Amino acid sequence: DDVWPDHGRPERTGEPEVVLATGKTPAQCAEAVAALHGGSSPVLVTRADAEHAAAVRGVVPDADYDEAARLVVVPAGEQRAGTPGTVAVATGGTGDLPVARECAGVLGAFGVEVRMVTDVGVTGVHRTLAAARTLTDTDVVVAVAGMEGTLPTVLAGLVSQPVVAVPTSVGYGASFGGVAALLTMLSSCAPGVSVVNIDNGFGAAMVARRILRTRGGAG
Amino acid sequence: DDVWPDHGRPERTGEPEVVLATGKTPAQCAEAVAALHGGSSPVLVTRADAEHAAAVRGVVPDADYDEAARLVVVPAGEQRAGTPGTVAVATGGTGDLPVARECAGVLGAFGVEVRMVTDVGVTGVHRTLAAARTLTDTDVVVAVAGMEGTLPTVLAGLVSQPVVAVPTSVGYGASFGGVAALLTMLSSCAPGVSVVNIDNGFGAAMVARRILRTRGGAG
Amino acid sequence: DDVWPDHGRPERTGEPEVVLATGKTPAQCAEAVAALHGGSSPVLVTRADAEHAAAVRGVVPDADYDEAARLVVVPAGEQRAGTPGTVAVATGGTGDLPVARECAGVLGAFGVEVRMVTDVGVTGVHRTLAAARTLTDTDVVVAVAGMEGTLPTVLAGLVSQPVVAVPTSVGYGASFGGVAALLTMLSSCAPGVSVVNIDNGFGAAMVARRILRTRGGAG
Amino acid sequence: DDVWPDHGRPERTGEPEVVLATGKTPAQCAEAVAALHGGSSPVLVTRADAEHAAAVRGVVPDADYDEAARLVVVPAGEQRAGTPGTVAVATGGTGDLPVARECAGVLGAFGVEVRMVTDVGVTGVHRTLAAARTLTDTDVVVAVAGMEGTLPTVLAGLVSQPVVAVPTSVGYGASFGGVAALLTMLSSCAPGVSVVNIDNGFGAAMVARRILRTRGGAG
Amino acid sequence: DDVWPDHGRPERTGEPEVVLATGKTPAQCAEAVAALHGGSSPVLVTRADAEHAAAVRGVVPDADYDEAARLVVVPAGEQRAGTPGTVAVATGGTGDLPVARECAGVLGAFGVEVRMVTDVGVTGVHRTLAAARTLTDTDVVVAVAGMEGTLPTVLAGLVSQPVVAVPTSVGYGASFGGVAALLTMLSSCAPGVSVVNIDNGFGAAMVARRILRTRGGAG
Amino acid sequence: DDVWPDHGRPERTGEPEVVLATGKTPAQCAEAVAALHGGSSPVLVTRADAEHAAAVRGVVPDADYDEAARLVVVPAGEQRAGTPGTVAVATGGTGDLPVARECAGVLGAFGVEVRMVTDVGVTGVHRTLAAARTLTDTDVVVAVAGMEGTLPTVLAGLVSQPVVAVPTSVGYGASFGGVAALLTMLSSCAPGVSVVNIDNGFGAAMVARRILRTRGGAG
Amino acid sequence: DDVWPDHGRPERTGEPEVVLATGKTPAQCAEAVAALHGGSSPVLVTRADAEHAAAVRGVVPDADYDEAARLVVVPAGEQRAGTPGTVAVATGGTGDLPVARECAGVLGAFGVEVRMVTDVGVTGVHRTLAAARTLTDTDVVVAVAGMEGTLPTVLAGLVSQPVVAVPTSVGYGASFGGVAALLTMLSSCAPGVSVVNIDNGFGAAMVARRILRTRGGAG
Amino acid sequence: DDVWPDHGRPERTGEPEVVLATGKTPAQCAEAVAALHGGSSPVLVTRADAEHAAAVRGVVPDADYDEAARLVVVPAGEQRAGTPGTVAVATGGTGDLPVARECAGVLGAFGVEVRMVTDVGVTGVHRTLAAARTLTDTDVVVAVAGMEGTLPTVLAGLVSQPVVAVPTSVGYGASFGGVAALLTMLSSCAPGVSVVNIDNGFGAAMVARRILRTRGGAG
Ligand SMILES: Nc1ncnc2c1ncn2[C@@H]1O[C@H](COP(=O)(O)O)[C@@H](O)[C@H]1O
Ligand SMILES: Nc1ncnc2c1ncn2[C@@H]1O[C@H](COP(=O)(O)O)[C@@H](O)[C@H]1O
Ligand SMILES: Nc1ncnc2c1ncn2[C@@H]1O[C@H](COP(=O)(O)O)[C@@H](O)[C@H]1O
Ligand SMILES: Nc1ncnc2c1ncn2[C@@H]1O[C@H](COP(=O)(O)O)[C@@H](O)[C@H]1O
Ligand SMILES: [Mg+2]
Ligand SMILES: [Mg+2]
Ligand SMILES: [Mg+2]
Ligand SMILES: [Mg+2]
Ligand SMILES: [Mg+2]
Ligand SMILES: [Mg+2]
Ligand SMILES: [Mg+2]
Ligand SMILES: [Mg+2]
Repeated sequence: DDVWPDHGRPERTGEPEVVLATGKTPAQCAEAVAALHGGSSPVLVTRADAEHAAAVRGVVPDADYDEAARLVVVPAGEQRAGTPGTVAVATGGTGDLPVARECAGVLGAFGVEVRMVTDVGVTGVHRTLAAARTLTDTDVVVAVAGMEGTLPTVLAGLVSQPVVAVPTSVGYGASFGGVAALLTMLSSCAPGVSVVNIDNGFGAAMVARRILRTRGGAG
Repeated sequence: DDVWPDHGRPERTGEPEVVLATGKTPAQCAEAVAALHGGSSPVLVTRADAEHAAAVRGVVPDADYDEAARLVVVPAGEQRAGTPGTVAVATGGTGDLPVARECAGVLGAFGVEVRMVTDVGVTGVHRTLAAARTLTDTDVVVAVAGMEGTLPTVLAGLVSQPVVAVPTSVGYGASFGGVAALLTMLSSCAPGVSVVNIDNGFGAAMVARRILRTRGGAG
Repeated sequence: DDVWPDHGRPERTGEPEVVLATGKTPAQCAEAVAALHGGSSPVLVTRADAEHAAAVRGVVPDADYDEAARLVVVPAGEQRAGTPGTVAVATGGTGDLPVARECAGVLGAFGVEVRMVTDVGVTGVHRTLAAARTLTDTDVVVAVAGMEGTLPTVLAGLVSQPVVAVPTSVGYGASFGGVAALLTMLSSCAPGVSVVNIDNGFGAAMVARRILRTRGGAG
Repeated sequence: DDVWPDHGRPERTGEPEVVLATGKTPAQCAEAVAALHGGSSPVLVTRADAEHAAAVRGVVPDADYDEAARLVVVPAGEQRAGTPGTVAVATGGTGDLPVARECAGVLGAFGVEVRMVTDVGVTGVHRTLAAARTLTDTDVVVAVAGMEGTLPTVLAGLVSQPVVAVPTSVGYGASFGGVAALLTMLSSCAPGVSVVNIDNGFGAAMVARRILRTRGGAG
Repeated sequence: DDVWPDHGRPERTGEPEVVLATGKTPAQCAEAVAALHGGSSPVLVTRADAEHAAAVRGVVPDADYDEAARLVVVPAGEQRAGTPGTVAVATGGTGDLPVARECAGVLGAFGVEVRMVTDVGVTGVHRTLAAARTLTDTDVVVAVAGMEGTLPTVLAGLVSQPVVAVPTSVGYGASFGGVAALLTMLSSCAPGVSVVNIDNGFGAAMVARRILRTRGGAG
Repeated sequence: DDVWPDHGRPERTGEPEVVLATGKTPAQCAEAVAALHGGSSPVLVTRADAEHAAAVRGVVPDADYDEAARLVVVPAGEQRAGTPGTVAVATGGTGDLPVARECAGVLGAFGVEVRMVTDVGVTGVHRTLAAARTLTDTDVVVAVAGMEGTLPTVLAGLVSQPVVAVPTSVGYGASFGGVAALLTMLSSCAPGVSVVNIDNGFGAAMVARRILRTRGGAG
Repeated sequence: DDVWPDHGRPERTGEPEVVLATGKTPAQCAEAVAALHGGSSPVLVTRADAEHAAAVRGVVPDADYDEAARLVVVPAGEQRAGTPGTVAVATGGTGDLPVARECAGVLGAFGVEVRMVTDVGVTGVHRTLAAARTLTDTDVVVAVAGMEGTLPTVLAGLVSQPVVAVPTSVGYGASFGGVAALLTMLSSCAPGVSVVNIDNGFGAAMVARRILRTRGGAG
Repeated sequence: DDVWPDHGRPERTGEPEVVLATGKTPAQCAEAVAALHGGSSPVLVTRADAEHAAAVRGVVPDADYDEAARLVVVPAGEQRAGTPGTVAVATGGTGDLPVARECAGVLGAFGVEVRMVTDVGVTGVHRTLAAARTLTDTDVVVAVAGMEGTLPTVLAGLVSQPVVAVPTSVGYGASFGGVAALLTMLSSCAPGVSVVNIDNGFGAAMVARRILRTRGGAG
């Protein structure tokens, strides 16, 4: 009884409550999943380590666990149509992959089509240009980057979609655990960029899904 | 010849280059407007003080100037259809109005319909709840708030649209010129919130417009 | 002889000295407890890990240890009447529980009645509203929240009691270990909110108890 | 129509909405005062400069203005009994007076008795000890201090009342506009101290008044 | 006699001492210029406002003053051959021009050829690419940029010269007076970038000149 | 009656209370001087601008005012013997002079002999070495430096006296108003360096005088 | 050959070089000790863990190791007379002891008499007052304190000696690893306080010893 | 397929892509090395721990691993002439060696001659002066220093080459993990200093090599 999930959220916002494992014991995660499970939404546990995942599987044995993404996905009890549209998830470097996979995993759980475009950082700007050309038929671009975090700025000058920028904590020294990338993205002079928290692949997915739903998608 | 505008931007991204007056002399602003003026896009000068506005009017006499918003708008030479859809711009308090008006002014220049919902900060949470009920038929919510910056979080738990959060520099002491509001918005546990720079009403408008265009709007 | 407790404190302030285990060896904790034990006040050790607790039990075998709260309580040698009044301890999310339990445990050691109201964060604002309605017959509200830390602001706009806000280090990225929540609470535009240190459930309990004692309670 | 005051607040929290002049034009302040004026609560405008005060007096000629405190007070239309109890407002140095006067002025507007104890900073700790002896018959202590901000800590070790600490921006260099004092107060190892924003005399007054009201005062 | 210039510097490092006007009275600047003037090096005063410049001209009437760059140049008494080689000075936006001109002015005083390439920020990345193509016959690239400060990173991935990055204080909000650009440049994952202080066009010029002199230039 | 000076301080610590003008009105400064004046200690007002000085002279016409140092000195009513010993005050650059003069002025008011050694910053390290050789017969070294603040570190490796380091706010960009110099001095690996607040020439003087008095000086 | 000790330091400053173990391998520490050992000064290794100490004992078997202080002391080859005078080392709380012992251990190695006064923090200000009375016959006071770090300020208002303030990293939350205590000490309005780095007991000892030597001690 | 190296970089900039192990699995590192190996450039892996090195050796058995420097070097498939010129790598203390070795190892992989000059920090400024005299026949100076980070400033006042400054995270307390050294280097008033990220020996090497190549070296 440590956990009182927000059961009214799907009705208000069209999204289920999502369990953040950080600061919760495995048992509390399992309790939360048990309370949310079985409805018309998938149940997600973010920032889950192996112990959290094991405890959840004690309650729902077929829960999916992506260790790199630290994401547990419990499919919806009754399957609904996915949200129509495609989200591109682009990363600056290989080290940004776990965050990109958290984002992609959350989108996938809601039936959104994802296109991964990895390792297209602006140091090799021709890769960035090439990547931008492959994005024209997507609806939203999530741009994930650490260190100096320039990828969203350059992409937003090349494409016309909304760009959701995700700074990552990849880097050292004056990167300050993602702060350098965060400030870059907030100070961006390219229009169309908005920003979520450092390493918040989950948040970017939820923003992207809300954008898709403005198009009249079922969600 | 201090200014080399990015003339290819409309074709790539569907948006004109926009002039940031900060750090520019009035003459440089006027030069930039002269170079951009006359095409199929409006020309905008943000962060313009009265001197900047006067210099621009020396070049384009019918330019509009909203002093509170510090925004100059030069209508497009040939008018295009506006971007269909409605953006709600909500503020926490009266002090946030200049930023909200910059946002609304930019959206208006692109033919986007705007609904202003002012002074609905969460301290009087019943106003926030009432405001949320009036937003259901809008497509995007821009939530503008200073001091502790909680408005976007509470709204995002009540509505299903994307919420673009704009921290403002309203406040004192531990508000640190908008930093408290910025961190609040980035750390928000409500899904669907993304953030732009402190006081960046312009940026929020451009994000909102890109979101509307994912719906197939002309824009 | 590393430890010189402040034996005059109960007389001056009506509170015993409390042992902070951080930076002390288990032996130093035990030495301090031995020096303080047996009087008319309970002895408390905060931030105690299992080794500290074991060492204290070597001195006072019936000392209580709440591992989640990291709190050791040694009941008073001669029991006094508790402080009359009720303190509500509300949390934003499950991850804030350890701090809330430290607060509740300290209050309990002084005979104060506590009402726990967990997981009522503002993302599900209807839970917050429901919670506020249950608080009307309490005397002080302690509001514990991490991430963006909005709970105290919203509660203070709904109730008339003093609200003691406790930011927690729950969160990641731009939460900066509790700084985002701390700044939110300090910048709050709701009247009646005062703030203690990050994760300082103990401090909030002592403030709440002093408030109760202004009512003429025995304490 | 830029201003939508929270008229329900007195009923919910027992306090009127208060106008923060920062970021508002004089006209907006006057509009807000006009909307709030005439009820059973005083109307307050904080952070008001001379222009704000003049505009308010255009609406309510007998409004009081304390320039040092930057506070406008419009007495309640129908006078209510004040909140019973006494609040001590102590300052570390002379430079902290404007903040202390804002606090005292707000308390006075609600009919709370105030005792000012100025210039009792801990460098001359015997003054602090002497001051503490004069506080025993007050109910709440507000301790206002800039630079290193130690006054609340020392007082809280000497008295048994709740101590509301107000850091001020008095100081230079590593005081960082009040941050040094703020961190001192938050890190205080004296129990019973809670903290409001830098220079927030108003906030301290509202906390003190809520504490008094837990005693069953009319307020 | 407030000023004791470092007369041995030319012999040790091949550079004259340079006068920083900030914190000096006009008279002190003039005294310093009088002490340094007449040798085989030009005399420079940086960060000079109009009063500083006037005082220097009282001593050396033909001193040059660039108000935008805030730079006074007193030509060398006996002219030496300039340092051979070409330095490109590129800016992200028009607002970065004053810093770029300080850099160019200092280089010009030492007889170094400068190529200005303005307004080539990465939001219009095709301008950046075009600019990079024009830089191939230069020896050093100074890249000046404010806001998010991405220009040096992208250029360093396109050219093979050393890139000296100069963050500027152009921007607002989370730009933090040049800090965002500074962190971007320090965290850059493009090789060959080194960084000088915010707005330090002078420093970049001196680094560029030392690099040219490794080529055996007279300097 | 805003001011309650600490009259017991001379007896406890051998130093008079000193008036900090910042945040005080001219009238409050004059009131404080009037209360302290006429004893066996000089009266000092630091951070005084011309208005403060004029008000003090209204009370004590022969008060001394050094505008650069912003220091008012009122000689002691009955002259005591000065503190024996010599303090060297060394500065890195000309811009550090106002802080050095505040230090020297305070020492002079107590009859301490001062040797000023200006403009010996480590960029011209031979000047620093030469300066160090002239310091051997002094008792304490105060080293004042802005920008990167290296002077105290180098001096402390060359001399055997205590080095009191004073960071100044001279500089720009990443100097952060004296923070860079402050951190340099605190992180110094040269033994014998201790640090006072940014621009705190007064504080350094008081530390130096206390050091001299350990030698048995009358002071 | 990774290590090149500064053998000239004793002659210039009267102090030996001291080895900082942080970032050195045990072998490098031993190499440094071997190079410095055998002269007329003790050899010290600070921040040494057990491995460092063991490696040093491989070279000098009778080296002393205080694990709490993390200090290795190798007595001087030929014993010199100690520095005359007494240094008081006072701590705010028990958690500050390791830093105080590093300070005392270094002083002891140089033959300075030390008086430890522990656990006299200002929350129990009567202990502080009592402690101050016992300090009158010492020459220098080192005041060590974490959390809010007020001890040096209060002591400096009670005694006439130089007070060397050492902030410690004891604390949590807004203590920020010693930053709160550091800022308190730098912003102190008590005269005679100077500050060394966080946890730098070694540095405080070296400052205290230099102060003693101004008295003409042998050293 | 997580990794898409930038194969065009050698042609554009004359440098191969380099693998940053942080945030990559050993398998991803090995995949990247396999993709880059065999051409005319060496392959480098920086920040590699033993597991990364082992995985790389599974692909290229004769790869070199320097554990202190955390650097893997895979020699070029076909050997090219090295870059002519000499780079001096100077360190302030022994703790800075790992960063200096990363720098030297990278330069060596490109056939650049390196001269190591260790432990010449400015506390023993005569060592610094002696070191400066040995640097006259080098072409670039890399100066590596932690704690207060003064070495580059002093060296740049003594030599005429470009000085590439590398702050290290060696230190504690107010060193803030290298921030103190970083700010010192950025604020340096010595001309000719430019700065790379904290602990970025790799970056300094790449800057130094680009500088050498401006001399017409083969590279
Ligand atoms: N990775 C995440 N980052 C940010 N917010 C999250 C994340 N995962 C879940 N949340 C939100 O944070 C809240 C967690 O609160 P609780 O589980 O009650 O502690 C949920 O309501 C989610 O909407
Ligand atoms: N704009 C500038 N930025 C950084 N350093 C400068 C600048 N102008 C001059 N300097 C250096 O700073 C020192 C100024 O010190 P001073 O003039 O003695 O206060 C000179 O030796 C110059 O090398
Ligand atoms: N969890 C806690 N948070 C804040 N202060 C505390 C806590 N526990 C104990 N204290 C106070 O901090 C002081 C501990 O310092 P000491 O035990 O002397 O090192 C005591 O006097 C308590 O009043
Ligand atoms: N605990 C300490 N804190 C600060 N500085 C120290 C400490 N221990 C030694 N030092 C100084 O730092 C320098 C260490 O540099 P190194 O051993 O060459 O890396 C020595 O010259 C000492 O003077
Ligand atoms: Mg890559
Ligand atoms: Mg309002
Ligand atoms: Mg929850
Ligand atoms: Mg005073
Ligand atoms: Mg431009
Ligand atoms: Mg100079
Ligand atoms: Mg204690
Ligand atoms: Mg060394």
